[in-house]
Amino acid sequence: MKQYIDLNSDLGESFGNYTLGMDSEVLNHVTSANVACGWHAGDPLIMEATVKMCKEKGVAVGAHPGYPDLMGFGRRKMAVSPDEARAYMIYQLGALQGFCNQYDVELQHMKLHGAFYNMACVTPDIADAVLDGLQAVNSKVRAMVLSGSYIAKEAERRDIPVIQEVFADRGYTEEGTLVPRTEEGAFIKDPQEALERVLMMVQEGKVVTNTGKTIDIAADSVCVHGDNPKAIAFTNYIHEGLVKAGVIVANFQNR
Amino acid sequence: MKQYIDLNSDLGESFGNYTLGMDSEVLNHVTSANVACGWHAGDPLIMEATVKMCKEKGVAVGAHPGYPDLMGFGRRKMAVSPDEARAYMIYQLGALQGFCNQYDVELQHMKLHGAFYNMACVTPDIADAVLDGLQAVNSKVRAMVLSGSYIAKEAERRDIPVIQEVFADRGYTEEGTLVPRTEEGAFIKDPQEALERVLMMVQEGKVVTNTGKTIDIAADSVCVHGDNPKAIAFTNYIHEGLVKAGVIVANFQNR
Amino acid sequence: MKQYIDLNSDLGESFGNYTLGMDSEVLNHVTSANVACGWHAGDPLIMEATVKMCKEKGVAVGAHPGYPDLMGFGRRKMAVSPDEARAYMIYQLGALQGFCNQYDVELQHMKLHGAFYNMACVTPDIADAVLDGLQAVNSKVRAMVLSGSYIAKEAERRDIPVIQEVFADRGYTEEGTLVPRTEEGAFIKDPQEALERVLMMVQEGKVVTNTGKTIDIAADSVCVHGDNPKAIAFTNYIHEGLVKAGVIVANFQNR
Amino acid sequence: MKQYIDLNSDLGESFGNYTLGMDSEVLNHVTSANVACGWHAGDPLIMEATVKMCKEKGVAVGAHPGYPDLMGFGRRKMAVSPDEARAYMIYQLGALQGFCNQYDVELQHMKLHGAFYNMACVTPDIADAVLDGLQAVNSKVRAMVLSGSYIAKEAERRDIPVIQEVFADRGYTEEGTLVPRTEEGAFIKDPQEALERVLMMVQEGKVVTNTGKTIDIAADSVCVHGDNPKAIAFTNYIHEGLVKAGVIVANFQNR
Repeated sequence: MKQYIDLNSDLGESFGNYTLGMDSEVLNHVTSANVACGWHAGDPLIMEATVKMCKEKGVAVGAHPGYPDLMGFGRRKMAVSPDEARAYMIYQLGALQGFCNQYDVELQHMKLHGAFYNMACVTPDIADAVLDGLQAVNSKVRAMVLSGSYIAKEAERRDIPVIQEVFADRGYTEEGTLVPRTEEGAFIKDPQEALERVLMMVQEGKVVTNTGKTIDIAADSVCVHGDNPKAIAFTNYIHEGLVKAGVIVANFQNR
Repeated sequence: MKQYIDLNSDLGESFGNYTLGMDSEVLNHVTSANVACGWHAGDPLIMEATVKMCKEKGVAVGAHPGYPDLMGFGRRKMAVSPDEARAYMIYQLGALQGFCNQYDVELQHMKLHGAFYNMACVTPDIADAVLDGLQAVNSKVRAMVLSGSYIAKEAERRDIPVIQEVFADRGYTEEGTLVPRTEEGAFIKDPQEALERVLMMVQEGKVVTNTGKTIDIAADSVCVHGDNPKAIAFTNYIHEGLVKAGVIVANFQNR
Repeated sequence: MKQYIDLNSDLGESFGNYTLGMDSEVLNHVTSANVACGWHAGDPLIMEATVKMCKEKGVAVGAHPGYPDLMGFGRRKMAVSPDEARAYMIYQLGALQGFCNQYDVELQHMKLHGAFYNMACVTPDIADAVLDGLQAVNSKVRAMVLSGSYIAKEAERRDIPVIQEVFADRGYTEEGTLVPRTEEGAFIKDPQEALERVLMMVQEGKVVTNTGKTIDIAADSVCVHGDNPKAIAFTNYIHEGLVKAGVIVANFQNR
Repeated sequence: MKQYIDLNSDLGESFGNYTLGMDSEVLNHVTSANVACGWHAGDPLIMEATVKMCKEKGVAVGAHPGYPDLMGFGRRKMAVSPDEARAYMIYQLGALQGFCNQYDVELQHMKLHGAFYNMACVTPDIADAVLDGLQAVNSKVRAMVLSGSYIAKEAERRDIPVIQEVFADRGYTEEGTLVPRTEEGAFIKDPQEALERVLMMVQEGKVVTNTGKTIDIAADSVCVHGDNPKAIAFTNYIHEGLVKAGVIVANFQNR
């Protein structure tokens, strides 16, 4: 049986006169892109250029909705209500869909950004609202969500296609959540160690936690980064290591 | 032969804690709504509520894209480039389309707002970019544009369905443009005079200019307002006068 | 001994084309104004007009800094860091000081808005940062803060002049905090009851809590509202009742 | 007689998660900084850090107000009214003054940004409004303006201290205006040629125009850039060349 994995990265996070990330470079190494939708980052010209580049490189396009907080890059917790969460989803998914129409590209998935992502992992009524928003716009758009989280289970329950996301550079707790950034074991910095962990997640469906225990984990896509040369090299190392191990690195449209 | 006319009004121009317009009231008198898309006015919750109300009242939904200038309500001239104009169109049309999907409503038309509307009337490369944006998202969406303007002709040339828009409360020059707001004859304030002018435009395809000359004018939709009780009464007067005269007041989806 | 009380209300919360509040009316009934600084509400033209009106009516001007969340009117909790809180204070106080310079008006006080106000009541490091910001700009500006709160005590410790604020229309817990809006006893709606409570706070320094207990409370200023005719009438009732009872209603510049 | 010149550069144009410019580097080569005020660029944390750095390096601080257009970096022409121009000035000058208070630094000057700068050069009622705003906040703040422009003359007429600004890397027309960016002779790219032109402006008060004619020009400050390594090298070359030629490079507070 063939084994597949998708590699995803955040893209299109520039804004106006500000450039962020090495988008044209990282697109050579990933298979799916999470494209900012103009709220925490991105603007219409950036979105248009990003979708165009994704198409040219054969990278699948996903929406990356964030909080209305450009100054905080969508990373600050905000007390957004479920009604707001649903409407923010619909607005941002719709906006990116416009650019997908422009380049005749399918909107493959949706992955929340920053504080919105974290909120939806731990707050069921926000997770529900996010899925309501996704279904309102297009129920075929896949939900890329933290592997094993509430929102992952709820999306499955609703028959929304789910992409279980794992992290190449992060440690896991016994509960299957990410080790908080302030705690020991939060980050996996060594590329070889990261690759070995990713291979174990992809090929065996298991991960070793920060306590040394081995737990089950579903891995459909691995989150990688492309905002600096070191991140690009790390991403490339993971990609090449997966291929060498016989794993097919591909998004969900090319299977 | 039956004669049809559409009545359109701007809606959904509230924002966050701020309420503007008497939307639920004016929806009883118009047949098409131009819904703000969150740039010059409107926000996702307002857009959602507005599309929902339009559906309930059988009023057709149109996108009302504006400049990125909430503080100036999109009324200030901005030197937006053609590339920006196209991308701003795609973004805002896409965002509103999301809410149309939510309520299973067709996006009937697109009408530009304020300074964007004026710019597209007189600047061919902006008009072209606007139509490029419309076609990129959905070429079936009608372009509601100033009757007889460059953008109206160019839309027809591209086989985009056009809604020629006339104004109940504005004077016209011999060139078929609106008398500038600062000049005499800019406004028609008397409801009866306005109704007579509208009837002449709809039934005879003619209008008397500020110089007294009679010129040809195509009238598919009449712009009316709903931001205060007087405007509502004016709109109602026009609507009832048209019906009494045997004109069928209907949007483009109910013919 | 003469007894003084100040009446404060939020003002200048309009934005661009949006009007909020009955500012010119409420200025006849209050002695201090909390002027929005362009973040959660207000814009430079509104700020200029508001400071001008305050000067004409002899109402003292205070800054009313809020979170960078116009869409949420500054009412949504945001995870703002102490560094951000300090810098946001300095920016907004400075901006309003510009308009005070324009009209040769003293910036009497600073009162936080909405979620920023609540955060500073319960989070010592945010409260400290707010006071750092105030002192950075002008240490003579009074801190108008929830009576008895951490920030009130810390401001006193720093020798910042403090205005202990009480609420005419809200219930108090035994801890001296406001009864949460969702709980019974949160609001005092009857004007006569409100007046009696205000008089007790001003003249005796005491308030009856939602449990029926009587606790001490310091009252330098009473928060009232002016966003609708009923609120104006309520405010006027409190003002007249205080005067009749022999209390001098005045801001801190006219004593 | 000693000859002085000031070198000014735009600083603090980062925003939130976005970094722009090599601020800490360029501060080694200039004597005055134009600090963005949060509208076209900059945010409170950036403003605070920038004023702090300026103080540490002995560089004078100026306000750099721009249009409310972060997406367009304040470079797009906007139809701002005189009332708006005045209020935007007051707001942004006040905000930066707050951070100057924080670090006990004098606000030396004000220089408009981008489209606002250009508008004030050619539109007398906007120029008047800008000066009204400056005088409203603090009439001792110097107006750094295009040498010989209307706003320069009007500021002198009002006894506002004026800094006549010239450009090291731009060509001049016979009217003393900058050669438009799209025309030949707009840019002086060779550092040696630029230095010679600057020296002629500073020492002789003359410049050779794009037509070859020599005209009078007053030069109090030279605009240089610091957004990339080449610009830094260019700026350093000009600075060192001026010093070698015996010109004292200093801001207006150190004379």
